[in-house]
Amino acid sequence: MSETSVEELYRNATLSPMLSVRNGAKAVAFYKAAFAAKELFRMDDESGAVVAHLAIGKSDFWLSDESPEYKNFSPETLGGGTVRMVIIADDPHAAFDVAVAAGGKVVCPVTDEPYGWRIGRILDPFGHHWEIGKPL
Amino acid sequence: MSETSVEELYRNATLSPMLSVRNGAKAVAFYKAAFAAKELFRMDDESGAVVAHLAIGKSDFWLSDESPEYKNFSPETLGGGTVRMVIIADDPHAAFDVAVAAGGKVVCPVTDEPYGWRIGRILDPFGHHWEIGKPL
Repeated sequence: MSETSVEELYRNATLSPMLSVRNGAKAVAFYKAAFAAKELFRMDDESGAVVAHLAIGKSDFWLSDESPEYKNFSPETLGGGTVRMVIIADDPHAAFDVAVAAGGKVVCPVTDEPYGWRIGRILDPFGHHWEIGKPL
Repeated sequence: MSETSVEELYRNATLSPMLSVRNGAKAVAFYKAAFAAKELFRMDDESGAVVAHLAIGKSDFWLSDESPEYKNFSPETLGGGTVRMVIIADDPHAAFDVAVAAGGKVVCPVTDEPYGWRIGRILDPFGHHWEIGKPL
């Protein structure tokens, strides 16, 4: 296939991360409180497991209860995370404080970094890491 | 802080995932071939480690070589992934075939699922899982 036609296939594509967690219902509540997330879609199954599509500002992400049998692992199961989330916000200090007040654990406070970003990092109660900042 | 002012803090926010990998340079090349990714920013340090900001269609993501000392783990190090990527493409079958030809391993072929999506799943050479599909 030519390079041009490959580009055409992906021209209108969008990409959204899908986070695996333990206790998706609690995670939805946390992301609402920490990042003013809005629920775009949510499905609760009989076991209490959740699949949710959430918006933060102008972006969206998915979360679901982990299913290790399908290679969807929570950070708690693996002992760490393989993808972290980078939020760009107009006022990183204020946005960071909200996320910490909601239960995020400070990994790095918001700092003006030599690489030109004002940014901090939190660990959420489900083991995912979030950076909150903006380029200066 | 009032609910309204928290919403205001996140109103213009954007969210982008940052993938940890082993061999970021090879990963950038793979994502270009598999998903027609464009390089928006790239920094190579003296050790060969890479931080890159890439676009796929209308979305963007970051990748960097893992740094376990800062809790940034590749799927190879942890033995799995905690976040998978969901790409929505106009023609999931064709986009999926490009990603597989580039070296993605088929986890689930593109199928019309009972939950209303035409979607398939690949494992990339760096251990991250990607779903490629669209709602029907």
